[in-house]
Amino acid sequence: MSPLSMDLNSDLGEGFGQWTLGDDDALLGVVTSANVACGFHAGDPVILRRVCDRAAAAGVAVGAQVGYRDLAGFGRRFVDVEPDALTQDVLYQVGALEAFARVAGTRVRYVKPHGALYNAIVAHEEQAAAVVRAVVEYDRTLPVLGLPGSAWLRLAAEAGLTVVAEAFADRAYTPEGTLVSRRLPGAVLHDADEIARRCVAMATGEPIADVDGGSLQLAPRSICVHGDTPGAVDIARRVRTALGEAGVELVPFAP
Amino acid sequence: MSPLSMDLNSDLGEGFGQWTLGDDDALLGVVTSANVACGFHAGDPVILRRVCDRAAAAGVAVGAQVGYRDLAGFGRRFVDVEPDALTQDVLYQVGALEAFARVAGTRVRYVKPHGALYNAIVAHEEQAAAVVRAVVEYDRTLPVLGLPGSAWLRLAAEAGLTVVAEAFADRAYTPEGTLVSRRLPGAVLHDADEIARRCVAMATGEPIADVDGGSLQLAPRSICVHGDTPGAVDIARRVRTALGEAGVELVPFAP
Amino acid sequence: MSPLSMDLNSDLGEGFGQWTLGDDDALLGVVTSANVACGFHAGDPVILRRVCDRAAAAGVAVGAQVGYRDLAGFGRRFVDVEPDALTQDVLYQVGALEAFARVAGTRVRYVKPHGALYNAIVAHEEQAAAVVRAVVEYDRTLPVLGLPGSAWLRLAAEAGLTVVAEAFADRAYTPEGTLVSRRLPGAVLHDADEIARRCVAMATGEPIADVDGGSLQLAPRSICVHGDTPGAVDIARRVRTALGEAGVELVPFAP
Amino acid sequence: MSPLSMDLNSDLGEGFGQWTLGDDDALLGVVTSANVACGFHAGDPVILRRVCDRAAAAGVAVGAQVGYRDLAGFGRRFVDVEPDALTQDVLYQVGALEAFARVAGTRVRYVKPHGALYNAIVAHEEQAAAVVRAVVEYDRTLPVLGLPGSAWLRLAAEAGLTVVAEAFADRAYTPEGTLVSRRLPGAVLHDADEIARRCVAMATGEPIADVDGGSLQLAPRSICVHGDTPGAVDIARRVRTALGEAGVELVPFAP
Repeated sequence: MSPLSMDLNSDLGEGFGQWTLGDDDALLGVVTSANVACGFHAGDPVILRRVCDRAAAAGVAVGAQVGYRDLAGFGRRFVDVEPDALTQDVLYQVGALEAFARVAGTRVRYVKPHGALYNAIVAHEEQAAAVVRAVVEYDRTLPVLGLPGSAWLRLAAEAGLTVVAEAFADRAYTPEGTLVSRRLPGAVLHDADEIARRCVAMATGEPIADVDGGSLQLAPRSICVHGDTPGAVDIARRVRTALGEAGVELVPFAP
Repeated sequence: MSPLSMDLNSDLGEGFGQWTLGDDDALLGVVTSANVACGFHAGDPVILRRVCDRAAAAGVAVGAQVGYRDLAGFGRRFVDVEPDALTQDVLYQVGALEAFARVAGTRVRYVKPHGALYNAIVAHEEQAAAVVRAVVEYDRTLPVLGLPGSAWLRLAAEAGLTVVAEAFADRAYTPEGTLVSRRLPGAVLHDADEIARRCVAMATGEPIADVDGGSLQLAPRSICVHGDTPGAVDIARRVRTALGEAGVELVPFAP
Repeated sequence: MSPLSMDLNSDLGEGFGQWTLGDDDALLGVVTSANVACGFHAGDPVILRRVCDRAAAAGVAVGAQVGYRDLAGFGRRFVDVEPDALTQDVLYQVGALEAFARVAGTRVRYVKPHGALYNAIVAHEEQAAAVVRAVVEYDRTLPVLGLPGSAWLRLAAEAGLTVVAEAFADRAYTPEGTLVSRRLPGAVLHDADEIARRCVAMATGEPIADVDGGSLQLAPRSICVHGDTPGAVDIARRVRTALGEAGVELVPFAP
Repeated sequence: MSPLSMDLNSDLGEGFGQWTLGDDDALLGVVTSANVACGFHAGDPVILRRVCDRAAAAGVAVGAQVGYRDLAGFGRRFVDVEPDALTQDVLYQVGALEAFARVAGTRVRYVKPHGALYNAIVAHEEQAAAVVRAVVEYDRTLPVLGLPGSAWLRLAAEAGLTVVAEAFADRAYTPEGTLVSRRLPGAVLHDADEIARRCVAMATGEPIADVDGGSLQLAPRSICVHGDTPGAVDIARRVRTALGEAGVELVPFAP
């Protein structure tokens, strides 16, 4: 991957049955990596099939967006799953998605935890280790995507997995490079131009402004954009366009 | 497969969470093919993992026992799923099980529908075709297991799949070779000696008695035994012993 | 209820968790009876609470919209539930909704089956009887809402329940007064003016045109309007306005 | 309630669909209060119906055993549900059970949280308050059952609810009157005679031995016995017999 290349990832396939969420088709025209919900927090087989087919056709990498078994909570509530059970829950989800990826002529190319699981394994060593173990057991060559500094990425690296750090297009960062809590004002950016500029900076090796106005150097290999509202899709498009105009090639991080 | 070989299949992994059903460990010492529930009608990831690990260690073939999405009904109620959705439901289940088979060092080696789906696709052409389509799309080399004369096996054969006919160890047959309805007296056999004798007959090319006392020639490549009660496991053991004593080699049908 | 009064009913509370469907708040300004999903095909406790609270505040009658246990299929797939189990499934759903109705200062005031169950019990005598039995056991004074001529209303009447016939605002009718199948052209009306005119006719004792252009006299005590799209809500509003302008009082049918 | 009376409570209705757990019928001959699972962690409508019918016939009080929405985890995993959602989850479960209690000629007579929720609200103030709020909103006259010293009972009392403290027949206690952690040796008693003696002591105002051999005075209004194994049912029977022989009347605590 040249210095001037970047991956854009987003959550897809998050409907269920009659219910839709986000605009998968629009996002598939924007991102290079699709974090596909695997049925535990969202996503049903019909949706998985469609997203995998379309992602494969569009050259978008399919990743397993694994979550807690919690449809009612959309995977956004911490569940104190026993680590061994969590390992099996992850394997189940990855395998289910793999069937659709395979039928679509591709394969699951990375793993990214979702929602409360994503947040939990920033610090929860046992659950982080459980998710790492699932990937190690399933396929040691699968990259994992997550937050720099998290237990998840640290343990994955220690286990020999390829770890990929992501940054968030629309989130403010502390001077230490961690995310500003959503409970604080200014945590989420809304100005499309500013967001696009920050993404270009991240992709071209320039610093961005931290929440205190200082200079912060982030070096993500992937940038996470959202697509759950029409406005979010517009911002994601703006980011893609700005990266292209800055000469940044948009390619999936996953081989 | 020599004329004197036979496969014994049974349903395994049919617990869920805290709940158990049947004695998987006992059955793994009896059967050569394990129809493993995949989570839609029974089976959770922890159970799938354990059954796959133990089946692989015991040399028992792992098959995907796919069913309707109906935990509350244990997959025993017909659900009028749209065929396309059924295809994806089957793919999802096979893929999920494949992850555990793979981690256990083996793979899913056949597909056998469960319960109401099994019964429905004896005659329901659209649902039968939908399940066939899932197997064709997933892996054309996967054998499918089912009832002789069913739409399921007929359409699978027409699609180029390897079809494997099974007989039931403990069920009475009509002179036409179909199962006597469970609603009729004598439909289910309970005498272990009689059941074992019939299984030996089927495996050695001898006829069995139909429900009217006539002579019926069945030629199954697999015999289905039950394990959901202690008595059922004893009968299954008796069948295995009798087959062994008759010089019938017990081997999985699936390559 | 004077001759010039009418009830408007619609399905509400059909989201689940993170997922929304329809515009409950808008519909609560239009209808007089809310068919509230009870959690088996749609609706979660948070949604049930909010809909009951708001319906009570708006003077809209709360009805239990009971369905098959099938979130993935939104209750739109026939499930061959055993009648006794169906009776208990209905009781469970009515009871769950009753808790929220009670907390909101009202109560469940009628029962209307949803989706595939609604369609099944037009003709499926055993399932129709099972739903009737649930209402009889729960509260014999609860009216039931449904299709004229259905087994559901016939058996309910025979059991001594108050039956309420509904018509559909946007559906074409055969000369015999049954619904034109959705598979046929013209089955669903889209012209808001025409729909409103037909509703006014039904409410004022005038005939409407059947699908062949003949004159058809329907005498519903409730008219079902939809709200699952912005356009549908607009049509529902138009119906309400037209009824008001025609001097038809809009009141819930349920006491 | 005279000093020589006691309530025995146990968890019932904890099967689901095809799966059974414990021996409900046996327990209904032993206990005076049945904590009936309401469908979120265990229990389906058919089971709820049967347990309520039989409890009512046997004069056993029906209580709502409310839990997290977690069938796969049997409600034994902490779920970080938002308090408002937890309140609605409890209302939903109580309402559902109420339908069956009502049909059986009785009503829900108390509320006892289950599993991880029971444990969480010993100290988790927000979740404890959320469950209290559900009971207050539903019916202020409903007693709540739980652990002495828990946030759950304290907040319930502050809200004006009737609180009922329970002791565990087969658990060791610290000198402070709290339960010895299950992770420590000796936490669970297995000797039926000893367990029965301790229950008689508790019911007759005598102290029991704490885990260090000291004297501990507990004054429960209800004693919790288990029934999930044949051995557990035997112990529960022994407790009942011993209490009877000691002149302790067995009566439900709930009015």
